Amino acid sequence: MSPEIKVIKIGGNVIDNPEALQSFVKDFATIPGRKILIHGGGKEATRLSGRLGIETQMIDGRRVTDRATLDVVTMVYAGMINKRIVAMLQAEGCDAIGLSGADGNVIRACRRPAVPVDYGFVGDIHADGVNHRFISMLLYNGLTPVLCAINHDGCGELLNCNADSVASAVAVACSRIGLTSLTFCFEKGGVLADINDDNSVIRSISSENYSALKSDGTISGGMLPKVDNAFKAISEGVNSVTIKSSADLLADSGTTITK
Amino acid sequence: MSPEIKVIKIGGNVIDNPEALQSFVKDFATIPGRKILIHGGGKEATRLSGRLGIETQMIDGRRVTDRATLDVVTMVYAGMINKRIVAMLQAEGCDAIGLSGADGNVIRACRRPAVPVDYGFVGDIHADGVNHRFISMLLYNGLTPVLCAINHDGCGELLNCNADSVASAVAVACSRIGLTSLTFCFEKGGVLADINDDNSVIRSISSENYSALKSDGTISGGMLPKVDNAFKAISEGVNSVTIKSSADLLADSGTTITK
Repeated sequence: MSPEIKVIKIGGNVIDNPEALQSFVKDFATIPGRKILIHGGGKEATRLSGRLGIETQMIDGRRVTDRATLDVVTMVYAGMINKRIVAMLQAEGCDAIGLSGADGNVIRACRRPAVPVDYGFVGDIHADGVNHRFISMLLYNGLTPVLCAINHDGCGELLNCNADSVASAVAVACSRIGLTSLTFCFEKGGVLADINDDNSVIRSISSENYSALKSDGTISGGMLPKVDNAFKAISEGVNSVTIKSSADLLADSGTTITK
Repeated sequence: MSPEIKVIKIGGNVIDNPEALQSFVKDFATIPGRKILIHGGGKEATRLSGRLGIETQMIDGRRVTDRATLDVVTMVYAGMINKRIVAMLQAEGCDAIGLSGADGNVIRACRRPAVPVDYGFVGDIHADGVNHRFISMLLYNGLTPVLCAINHDGCGELLNCNADSVASAVAVACSRIGLTSLTFCFEKGGVLADINDDNSVIRSISSENYSALKSDGTISGGMLPKVDNAFKAISEGVNSVTIKSSADLLADSGTTITK
Protein backbone atom coordinates (compact mmCIF):
# COMPACT_ATOMS: atom_id res chain seq x y z
CA MET A 1 0.00 0.00 0.00
CA SER A 2 1.27 3.44 -0.94
CA PRO A 3 2.23 5.37 2.18
CA GLU A 4 0.73 8.49 0.66
CA ILE A 5 -2.83 9.68 1.26
CA LYS A 6 -4.29 11.09 -1.95
CA VAL A 7 -7.00 13.73 -1.61
CA ILE A 8 -8.66 14.40 -4.96
CA LYS A 9 -11.27 17.04 -5.70
CA ILE A 10 -13.62 17.11 -8.69
CA GLY A 11 -15.94 19.92 -9.70
CA GLY A 12 -18.97 20.59 -11.82
CA ASN A 13 -17.31 19.97 -15.16
CA VAL A 14 -17.06 16.26 -14.30
CA ILE A 15 -20.30 15.96 -12.34
CA ASP A 16 -22.44 17.55 -15.04
CA ASN A 17 -21.15 15.17 -17.73
CA PRO A 18 -22.23 11.51 -17.22
CA GLU A 19 -19.56 10.11 -19.59
CA ALA A 20 -16.79 12.19 -17.99
CA LEU A 21 -17.96 11.12 -14.53
CA GLN A 22 -18.06 7.43 -15.46
CA SER A 23 -14.57 7.68 -16.94
CA PHE A 24 -13.23 9.57 -13.93
CA VAL A 25 -14.76 7.05 -11.49
CA LYS A 26 -13.12 4.15 -13.37
CA ASP A 27 -9.74 5.90 -13.19
CA PHE A 28 -10.16 6.88 -9.53
CA ALA A 29 -11.13 3.31 -8.55
CA THR A 30 -7.81 1.98 -9.91
CA ILE A 31 -5.65 4.27 -7.76
CA PRO A 32 -4.04 2.03 -5.15
CA GLY A 33 -3.76 2.83 -1.47
CA ARG A 34 -5.43 5.39 0.74
CA LYS A 35 -7.51 7.99 -1.07
CA ILE A 36 -10.33 10.44 -0.48
CA LEU A 37 -12.66 12.02 -3.03
CA ILE A 38 -14.24 15.44 -2.54
CA HIS A 39 -16.92 16.52 -4.97
CA GLY A 40 -18.56 19.81 -5.77
CA GLY A 41 -22.09 20.22 -6.93
CA GLY A 42 -22.34 21.13 -10.58
CA LYS A 43 -25.40 22.71 -12.09
CA GLU A 44 -28.01 20.30 -10.74
CA ALA A 45 -28.75 22.38 -7.62
CA THR A 46 -29.42 25.48 -9.71
CA ARG A 47 -31.57 23.42 -12.10
CA LEU A 48 -33.59 21.89 -9.24
CA SER A 49 -34.00 25.30 -7.56
CA GLY A 50 -35.33 26.64 -10.86
CA ARG A 51 -37.85 23.80 -11.20
CA LEU A 52 -39.02 24.49 -7.63
CA GLY A 53 -39.32 28.23 -8.22
CA ILE A 54 -36.52 29.02 -5.77
CA GLU A 55 -34.44 31.94 -6.92
CA THR A 56 -30.70 31.28 -7.15
CA GLN A 57 -28.63 34.20 -5.95
CA MET A 58 -24.85 34.19 -6.34
CA ILE A 59 -22.52 36.80 -4.83
CA ASP A 60 -18.85 36.65 -5.87
CA GLY A 61 -19.41 33.12 -7.16
CA ARG A 62 -20.86 31.90 -3.85
CA ARG A 63 -24.41 30.62 -3.55
CA VAL A 64 -26.60 32.54 -1.10
CA THR A 65 -28.17 29.70 0.87
CA ASP A 66 -31.53 30.38 2.49
CA ARG A 67 -33.46 27.55 4.18
CA ALA A 68 -35.11 26.34 0.95
CA THR A 69 -31.78 26.44 -0.90
CA LEU A 70 -30.08 24.54 1.94
CA ASP A 71 -32.65 21.76 1.48
CA VAL A 72 -31.96 21.75 -2.27
CA VAL A 73 -28.16 21.56 -1.96
CA THR A 74 -28.41 18.94 0.80
CA MET A 75 -30.67 16.83 -1.40
CA VAL A 76 -28.54 17.25 -4.53
CA TYR A 77 -25.00 17.15 -3.10
CA ALA A 78 -25.36 14.83 -0.08
CA GLY A 79 -28.16 12.76 -1.62
CA MET A 80 -28.22 12.29 -5.35
CA ILE A 81 -24.67 13.12 -6.46
CA ASN A 82 -22.90 11.60 -3.46
CA LYS A 83 -24.84 8.33 -3.57
CA ARG A 84 -24.56 8.04 -7.36
CA ILE A 85 -20.77 8.38 -7.16
CA VAL A 86 -20.55 5.92 -4.25
CA ALA A 87 -22.68 3.33 -6.09
CA MET A 88 -20.52 3.76 -9.22
CA LEU A 89 -17.31 3.34 -7.21
CA GLN A 90 -18.67 0.25 -5.46
CA ALA A 91 -19.46 -1.23 -8.87
CA GLU A 92 -15.79 -0.65 -9.79
CA GLY A 93 -14.63 -2.52 -6.69
CA CYS A 94 -13.73 0.57 -4.67
CA ASP A 95 -15.15 0.37 -1.13
CA ALA A 96 -16.45 3.94 -1.04
CA ILE A 97 -18.37 5.55 1.80
CA GLY A 98 -20.27 8.77 1.16
CA LEU A 99 -20.21 11.41 3.88
CA SER A 100 -21.51 14.81 4.73
CA GLY A 101 -19.60 16.63 7.43
CA ALA A 102 -22.23 15.57 9.98
CA ASP A 103 -21.55 11.86 9.43
CA GLY A 104 -19.13 10.69 12.08
CA ASN A 105 -18.72 14.39 12.88
CA VAL A 106 -16.12 14.39 10.13
CA ILE A 107 -16.23 18.12 9.36
CA ARG A 108 -17.51 20.90 11.58
CA ALA A 109 -18.04 24.28 9.97
CA CYS A 110 -18.81 27.70 11.39
CA ARG A 111 -21.63 29.72 9.92
CA ARG A 112 -20.20 32.70 8.10
CA PRO A 113 -20.97 36.02 9.84
CA ALA A 114 -23.88 37.91 8.26
CA VAL A 115 -21.72 41.01 7.88
CA PRO A 116 -20.67 42.31 5.35
CA VAL A 117 -22.68 39.83 3.22
CA ASP A 118 -25.31 37.49 4.61
CA TYR A 119 -24.81 34.24 2.67
CA GLY A 120 -27.34 32.40 4.86
CA PHE A 121 -26.51 28.79 5.73
CA VAL A 122 -22.97 28.95 4.40
CA GLY A 123 -20.08 27.68 6.48
CA ASP A 124 -16.33 28.05 6.60
CA ILE A 125 -14.07 25.30 7.84
CA HIS A 126 -10.70 25.16 9.47
CA ALA A 127 -8.24 22.29 9.57
CA ASP A 128 -9.06 21.64 13.25
CA GLY A 129 -12.71 21.23 12.26
CA VAL A 130 -11.74 18.04 10.41
CA ASN A 131 -11.97 14.82 12.44
CA HIS A 132 -8.73 13.17 11.28
CA ARG A 133 -9.11 10.29 13.74
CA PHE A 134 -12.38 9.27 12.09
CA ILE A 135 -10.86 9.60 8.59
CA SER A 136 -7.86 7.58 9.74
CA MET A 137 -10.16 4.84 11.08
CA LEU A 138 -12.02 4.63 7.75
CA LEU A 139 -8.79 4.53 5.71
CA TYR A 140 -7.32 1.91 8.06
CA ASN A 141 -10.39 -0.23 7.37
CA GLY A 142 -9.84 -0.02 3.61
CA LEU A 143 -12.65 2.45 2.98
CA THR A 144 -12.53 5.39 0.57
CA PRO A 145 -14.37 8.44 1.94
CA VAL A 146 -16.37 10.42 -0.63
CA LEU A 147 -17.20 13.84 0.79
CA CYS A 148 -19.66 16.41 -0.42
CA ALA A 149 -19.42 20.01 0.75
CA ILE A 150 -22.41 19.92 3.11
CA ASN A 151 -21.10 20.13 6.67
CA HIS A 152 -22.58 20.74 10.10
CA ASP A 153 -22.03 23.18 12.94
CA GLY A 154 -22.26 20.59 15.74
CA CYS A 155 -25.47 22.20 16.99
CA GLY A 156 -27.83 20.47 14.59
CA GLU A 157 -27.52 22.81 11.62
CA LEU A 158 -26.25 21.83 8.18
CA LEU A 159 -24.09 24.35 6.31
CA ASN A 160 -23.21 24.70 2.63
CA CYS A 161 -19.44 25.00 2.15
CA ASN A 162 -17.03 25.53 -0.70
CA ALA A 163 -15.74 22.21 -2.03
CA ASP A 164 -12.23 23.54 -2.77
CA SER A 165 -11.97 24.68 0.85
CA VAL A 166 -13.23 21.28 2.08
CA ALA A 167 -10.57 19.56 -0.03
CA SER A 168 -7.80 21.80 1.36
CA ALA A 169 -8.93 21.36 4.96
CA VAL A 170 -9.22 17.57 4.60
CA ALA A 171 -5.76 17.37 3.02
CA VAL A 172 -4.24 19.48 5.78
CA ALA A 173 -5.89 17.25 8.41
CA CYS A 174 -4.70 14.09 6.62
CA SER A 175 -1.14 15.39 6.71
CA ARG A 176 -1.28 14.65 10.46
CA ILE A 177 -1.89 10.99 9.60
CA GLY A 178 0.66 10.63 6.80
CA LEU A 179 2.27 12.11 3.70
CA THR A 180 -0.60 13.74 1.81
CA SER A 181 -1.01 14.95 -1.75
CA LEU A 182 -3.91 17.11 -2.89
CA THR A 183 -5.16 17.15 -6.48
CA PHE A 184 -7.64 19.64 -7.89
CA CYS A 185 -9.20 18.32 -11.10
CA PHE A 186 -10.69 20.89 -13.43
CA GLU A 187 -11.36 21.45 -17.13
CA LYS A 188 -7.88 22.65 -18.10
CA GLY A 189 -4.67 20.64 -18.24
CA GLY A 190 -3.10 22.70 -15.45
CA VAL A 191 -1.89 26.22 -14.81
CA LEU A 192 -1.25 27.64 -18.29
CA ALA A 193 1.62 29.98 -19.18
CA ASP A 194 -0.51 31.21 -22.09
CA ILE A 195 -4.21 31.17 -21.32
CA ASN A 196 -4.97 30.69 -25.02
CA ASP A 197 -2.69 27.67 -25.39
CA ASP A 198 -3.84 24.48 -23.70
CA ASN A 199 -0.40 23.00 -24.33
CA SER A 200 1.38 25.63 -22.25
CA VAL A 201 0.96 23.85 -18.90
CA ILE A 202 3.51 24.98 -16.32
CA ARG A 203 4.67 21.64 -14.93
CA SER A 204 5.91 22.83 -11.59
CA ILE A 205 5.68 25.84 -9.35
CA SER A 206 7.65 26.27 -6.18
CA SER A 207 7.88 29.19 -3.83
CA GLU A 208 11.18 29.99 -5.58
CA ASN A 209 9.75 30.55 -9.09
CA TYR A 210 6.25 31.70 -8.05
CA SER A 211 7.27 35.31 -7.41
CA ALA A 212 8.80 35.57 -10.88
CA LEU A 213 5.74 33.94 -12.53
CA LYS A 214 3.50 36.46 -10.78
CA SER A 215 5.61 39.54 -11.41
CA ASP A 216 6.02 38.84 -15.14
CA GLY A 217 2.26 38.28 -15.42
CA THR A 218 2.51 34.60 -16.42
CA ILE A 219 0.14 33.69 -13.60
CA SER A 220 -2.68 36.17 -13.14
CA GLY A 221 -6.42 36.56 -12.73
CA GLY A 222 -8.47 33.62 -11.51
CA MET A 223 -5.41 31.38 -11.23
CA LEU A 224 -3.82 33.49 -8.50
CA PRO A 225 -6.23 32.48 -5.69
CA LYS A 226 -5.98 28.81 -6.74
CA VAL A 227 -2.19 28.82 -6.55
CA ASP A 228 -2.20 30.92 -3.36
CA ASN A 229 -4.54 28.36 -1.76
CA ALA A 230 -2.22 25.57 -2.87
CA PHE A 231 0.75 27.26 -1.16
CA LYS A 232 -1.38 27.79 1.94
CA ALA A 233 -2.22 24.05 2.09
CA ILE A 234 1.48 23.23 1.66
CA SER A 235 2.49 25.65 4.39
CA GLU A 236 0.01 23.83 6.66
CA GLY A 237 1.48 20.39 6.03
CA VAL A 238 0.33 19.05 2.66
CA ASN A 239 3.24 17.58 0.70
CA SER A 240 2.22 18.63 -2.81
CA VAL A 241 -0.74 20.11 -4.65
CA THR A 242 -1.48 19.26 -8.28
CA ILE A 243 -3.87 21.14 -10.54
CA LYS A 244 -4.79 19.03 -13.56
CA SER A 245 -7.48 17.87 -15.95
CA SER A 246 -10.01 15.39 -14.60
CA ALA A 247 -9.60 13.45 -17.87
CA ASP A 248 -5.90 12.83 -17.08
CA LEU A 249 -6.19 11.64 -13.49
CA LEU A 250 -3.78 8.73 -13.92
CA ALA A 251 -1.28 10.53 -16.16
CA ASP A 252 1.81 12.30 -14.89
CA SER A 253 0.44 15.65 -15.97
CA GLY A 254 -0.77 19.02 -14.76
CA THR A 255 0.89 21.60 -12.57
CA THR A 256 2.46 20.42 -9.34
CA ILE A 257 3.02 22.94 -6.60
CA THR A 258 5.59 22.17 -3.93
CA LYS A 259 7.41 23.99 -1.19
CA MET B 1 -21.85 -1.02 27.52
CA SER B 2 -25.00 -3.04 27.01
CA PRO B 3 -24.20 -6.30 25.25
CA GLU B 4 -27.37 -5.92 23.21
CA ILE B 5 -27.52 -4.33 19.77
CA LYS B 6 -30.70 -2.26 19.45
CA VAL B 7 -32.10 -1.79 15.94
CA ILE B 8 -34.85 0.84 15.92
CA LYS B 9 -37.03 1.81 12.99
CA ILE B 10 -39.05 5.02 12.65
CA GLY B 11 -41.56 5.84 9.95
CA GLY B 12 -43.32 8.78 8.39
CA ASN B 13 -45.39 9.70 11.45
CA VAL B 14 -42.18 10.83 13.20
CA ILE B 15 -40.36 12.19 10.17
CA ASP B 16 -43.24 14.37 9.02
CA ASN B 17 -43.58 16.04 12.44
CA PRO B 18 -40.59 18.26 13.40
CA GLU B 19 -41.46 18.32 17.13
CA ALA B 20 -41.99 14.54 17.26
CA LEU B 21 -38.70 14.01 15.41
CA GLN B 22 -36.78 16.33 17.76
CA SER B 23 -38.25 14.57 20.78
CA PHE B 24 -37.52 11.12 19.34
CA VAL B 25 -33.93 12.09 18.49
CA LYS B 26 -33.34 13.32 22.07
CA ASP B 27 -34.67 10.03 23.45
CA PHE B 28 -32.73 7.90 20.97
CA ALA B 29 -29.48 9.74 21.75
CA THR B 30 -29.74 8.78 25.45
CA ILE B 31 -29.96 5.03 24.78
CA PRO B 32 -26.65 3.57 25.93
CA GLY B 33 -24.61 1.03 24.01
CA ARG B 34 -24.71 -0.20 20.45
CA LYS B 35 -27.67 1.00 18.41
CA ILE B 36 -28.78 1.48 14.82
CA LEU B 37 -31.52 3.73 13.47
CA ILE B 38 -33.46 2.94 10.29
CA HIS B 39 -35.75 5.61 8.91
CA GLY B 40 -38.51 5.62 6.35
CA GLY B 41 -39.35 8.54 4.15
CA GLY B 42 -42.58 10.23 5.14
CA LYS B 43 -44.54 12.43 2.81
CA GLU B 44 -41.70 14.68 1.62
CA ALA B 45 -40.89 12.54 -1.44
CA THR B 46 -44.49 12.66 -2.63
CA ARG B 47 -44.58 16.41 -1.96
CA LEU B 48 -41.35 17.02 -3.89
CA SER B 49 -42.53 14.81 -6.77
CA GLY B 50 -45.70 16.86 -6.93
CA ARG B 51 -43.78 20.16 -7.05
CA LEU B 52 -41.64 18.75 -9.87
CA GLY B 53 -44.66 17.49 -11.80
CA ILE B 54 -43.67 13.85 -11.37
CA GLU B 55 -46.69 11.63 -10.92
CA THR B 56 -46.65 9.45 -7.79
CA GLN B 57 -47.97 5.97 -8.42
CA MET B 58 -48.51 3.55 -5.53
CA ILE B 59 -49.43 -0.12 -5.97
CA ASP B 60 -50.32 -2.05 -2.80
CA GLY B 61 -48.73 0.71 -0.73
CA ARG B 62 -45.41 0.51 -2.62
CA ARG B 63 -44.06 3.42 -4.61
CA VAL B 64 -43.52 2.74 -8.31
CA THR B 65 -40.02 4.12 -8.81
CA ASP B 66 -39.09 5.27 -12.30
CA ARG B 67 -35.77 7.06 -12.94
CA ALA B 68 -37.11 10.51 -11.99
CA THR B 69 -38.74 9.13 -8.83
CA LEU B 70 -35.52 7.32 -7.91
CA ASP B 71 -33.71 10.68 -8.04
CA VAL B 72 -36.41 12.21 -5.82
CA VAL B 73 -36.34 9.48 -3.17
CA THR B 74 -32.52 9.42 -3.19
CA MET B 75 -32.45 13.19 -2.66
CA VAL B 76 -35.12 13.17 0.04
CA TYR B 77 -34.29 9.97 1.98
CA ALA B 78 -30.49 9.69 1.57
CA GLY B 79 -29.95 13.45 1.40
CA MET B 80 -32.27 15.72 3.30
CA ILE B 81 -33.89 13.44 5.89
CA ASN B 82 -30.83 11.31 6.60
CA LYS B 83 -28.48 14.28 7.02
CA ARG B 84 -30.99 16.25 9.10
CA ILE B 85 -31.35 13.34 11.52
CA VAL B 86 -27.58 12.79 11.68
CA ALA B 87 -26.92 16.49 12.39
CA MET B 88 -29.61 16.45 15.11
CA LEU B 89 -28.10 13.33 16.71
CA GLN B 90 -24.61 14.82 16.59
CA ALA B 91 -25.95 17.89 18.39
CA GLU B 92 -27.26 15.54 21.10
CA GLY B 93 -23.83 13.96 21.52
CA CYS B 94 -24.61 10.79 19.58
CA ASP B 95 -21.85 9.98 17.06
CA ALA B 96 -24.20 9.14 14.19
CA ILE B 97 -23.16 8.21 10.67
CA GLY B 98 -25.74 8.34 7.89
CA LEU B 99 -25.66 5.61 5.29
CA SER B 100 -27.34 4.44 2.14
CA GLY B 101 -26.82 0.79 1.30
CA ALA B 102 -24.09 1.77 -1.16
CA ASP B 103 -21.93 3.35 1.56
CA GLY B 104 -19.38 0.80 2.70
CA ASN B 105 -21.44 -1.68 0.64
CA VAL B 106 -23.58 -2.03 3.76
CA ILE B 107 -26.73 -3.30 2.01
CA ARG B 108 -26.99 -4.89 -1.39
CA ALA B 109 -30.46 -5.28 -2.84
CA CYS B 110 -31.79 -7.12 -5.88
CA ARG B 111 -34.06 -5.30 -8.28
CA ARG B 112 -37.53 -6.74 -8.03
CA PRO B 113 -38.57 -8.71 -11.14
CA ALA B 114 -40.81 -6.72 -13.50
CA VAL B 115 -43.43 -9.51 -13.44
CA PRO B 116 -46.21 -9.49 -12.25
CA VAL B 117 -45.83 -5.77 -11.39
CA ASP B 118 -42.99 -3.56 -12.64
CA TYR B 119 -42.15 -1.34 -9.68
CA GLY B 120 -39.13 0.12 -11.48
CA PHE B 121 -36.05 0.79 -9.36
CA VAL B 122 -37.35 -1.06 -6.32
CA GLY B 123 -35.19 -3.60 -4.53
CA ASP B 124 -35.62 -6.46 -2.11
CA ILE B 125 -32.97 -7.40 0.40
CA HIS B 126 -31.96 -10.57 2.13
CA ALA B 127 -30.06 -10.99 5.37
CA ASP B 128 -26.95 -12.07 3.45
CA GLY B 129 -27.09 -8.77 1.54
CA VAL B 130 -26.24 -6.96 4.77
CA ASN B 131 -22.54 -6.37 5.43
CA HIS B 132 -22.44 -7.23 9.14
CA ARG B 133 -18.64 -6.92 9.28
CA PHE B 134 -18.88 -3.26 8.26
CA ILE B 135 -21.69 -2.61 10.75
CA SER B 136 -19.68 -4.36 13.45
CA MET B 137 -16.65 -2.17 12.67
CA LEU B 138 -18.74 1.01 12.97
CA LEU B 139 -20.34 -0.11 16.26
CA TYR B 140 -16.95 -1.15 17.63
CA ASN B 141 -15.72 2.38 16.92
CA GLY B 142 -18.59 3.90 18.88
CA LEU B 143 -20.57 5.05 15.85
CA THR B 144 -24.34 4.86 15.48
CA PRO B 145 -25.36 3.96 11.92
CA VAL B 146 -28.43 5.80 10.59
CA LEU B 147 -29.75 4.00 7.54
CA CYS B 148 -32.24 5.15 4.95
CA ALA B 149 -33.94 2.65 2.66
CA ILE B 150 -31.99 3.51 -0.50
CA ASN B 151 -29.68 0.61 -1.30
CA HIS B 152 -27.57 -0.49 -4.25
CA ASP B 153 -27.30 -3.55 -6.46
CA GLY B 154 -23.49 -3.67 -6.50
CA CYS B 155 -23.49 -2.86 -10.21
CA GLY B 156 -23.82 0.90 -9.88
CA GLU B 157 -27.59 1.17 -9.57
CA LEU B 158 -29.44 2.58 -6.55
CA LEU B 159 -32.69 0.89 -5.53
CA ASN B 160 -35.61 2.07 -3.40
CA CYS B 161 -36.43 -0.46 -0.66
CA ASN B 162 -39.00 -0.87 2.07
CA ALA B 163 -37.72 0.52 5.38
CA ASP B 164 -39.43 -2.18 7.50
CA SER B 165 -37.66 -4.82 5.43
CA VAL B 166 -34.33 -3.00 5.79
CA ALA B 167 -34.81 -2.93 9.57
CA SER B 168 -35.58 -6.66 9.71
CA ALA B 169 -32.64 -7.60 7.49
CA VAL B 170 -30.24 -5.40 9.47
CA ALA B 171 -31.45 -6.87 12.77
CA VAL B 172 -31.07 -10.42 11.47
CA ALA B 173 -27.53 -9.61 10.27
CA CYS B 174 -26.68 -8.00 13.63
CA SER B 175 -27.77 -11.15 15.44
CA ARG B 176 -24.57 -12.70 14.01
CA ILE B 177 -22.58 -10.07 15.94
CA GLY B 178 -24.49 -10.20 19.22
CA LEU B 179 -27.83 -10.37 20.97
CA THR B 180 -30.13 -8.11 18.93
CA SER B 181 -33.48 -6.49 19.62
CA LEU B 182 -35.60 -4.87 16.92
CA THR B 183 -38.10 -2.10 17.64
CA PHE B 184 -40.66 -0.80 15.20
CA CYS B 185 -41.91 2.64 16.24
CA PHE B 186 -45.27 3.70 14.90
CA GLU B 187 -48.24 5.89 15.78
CA LYS B 188 -50.02 3.41 18.09
CA GLY B 189 -48.93 2.20 21.51
CA GLY B 190 -48.51 -1.37 20.26
CA VAL B 191 -50.61 -4.23 18.97
CA LEU B 192 -54.11 -3.50 20.26
CA ALA B 193 -56.59 -6.11 21.48
CA ASP B 194 -59.37 -3.67 20.62
CA ILE B 195 -58.54 -1.47 17.64
CA ASN B 196 -60.79 1.28 19.05
CA ASP B 197 -59.10 1.31 22.44
CA ASP B 198 -55.57 2.73 22.56
CA ASN B 199 -55.21 1.38 26.09
CA SER B 200 -55.69 -2.25 25.01
CA VAL B 201 -52.05 -2.91 24.13
CA ILE B 202 -51.18 -6.61 24.17
CA ARG B 203 -47.91 -6.57 26.14
CA SER B 204 -46.46 -9.80 24.85
CA ILE B 205 -46.96 -12.25 22.07
CA SER B 206 -45.15 -15.54 21.80
CA SER B 207 -45.54 -18.38 19.33
CA GLU B 208 -47.56 -20.07 22.06
CA ASN B 209 -50.35 -17.49 22.35
CA TYR B 210 -50.18 -16.14 18.77
CA SER B 211 -52.34 -18.92 17.28
CA ALA B 212 -55.09 -18.25 19.81
CA LEU B 213 -54.89 -14.45 19.26
CA LYS B 214 -55.27 -15.04 15.54
CA SER B 215 -58.01 -17.62 15.68
CA ASP B 216 -60.20 -15.59 18.05
CA GLY B 217 -59.77 -12.54 15.79
CA THR B 218 -57.90 -10.43 18.39
CA ILE B 219 -55.11 -9.85 15.89
CA SER B 220 -56.32 -9.32 12.37
CA GLY B 221 -56.07 -7.12 9.31
CA GLY B 222 -52.99 -4.95 8.84
CA MET B 223 -51.43 -6.14 12.08
CA LEU B 224 -51.07 -9.73 10.85
CA PRO B 225 -48.21 -9.07 8.37
CA LYS B 226 -46.40 -6.93 10.99
CA VAL B 227 -46.52 -9.68 13.59
CA ASP B 228 -45.74 -12.38 11.01
CA ASN B 229 -42.66 -10.38 9.97
CA ALA B 230 -41.63 -10.08 13.61
CA PHE B 231 -41.80 -13.87 14.05
CA LYS B 232 -39.82 -14.29 10.82
CA ALA B 233 -37.03 -12.03 12.16
CA ILE B 234 -37.03 -13.99 15.42
CA SER B 235 -36.84 -17.32 13.59
CA GLU B 236 -33.79 -15.92 11.76
CA GLY B 237 -31.92 -14.98 14.94
CA VAL B 238 -33.30 -11.73 16.37
CA ASN B 239 -33.87 -12.02 20.13
CA SER B 240 -37.03 -9.93 20.44
CA VAL B 241 -39.17 -7.57 18.39
CA THR B 242 -41.11 -4.70 19.97
CA ILE B 243 -43.86 -2.73 18.30
CA LYS B 244 -44.48 0.54 20.13
CA SER B 245 -45.18 4.25 19.94
CA SER B 246 -42.29 6.48 18.83
CA ALA B 247 -43.29 8.86 21.66
CA ASP B 248 -42.57 6.15 24.26
CA LEU B 249 -39.16 4.99 23.07
CA LEU B 250 -37.59 4.93 26.53
CA ALA B 251 -40.61 3.53 28.38
CA ASP B 252 -41.16 -0.14 29.05
CA SER B 253 -44.17 -0.21 26.78
CA GLY B 254 -45.59 -1.62 23.57
CA THR B 255 -45.95 -5.18 22.39
CA THR B 256 -42.94 -7.44 22.65
CA ILE B 257 -42.78 -10.50 20.45
CA THR B 258 -40.53 -13.35 21.48
CA LYS B 259 -40.00 -16.96 20.55
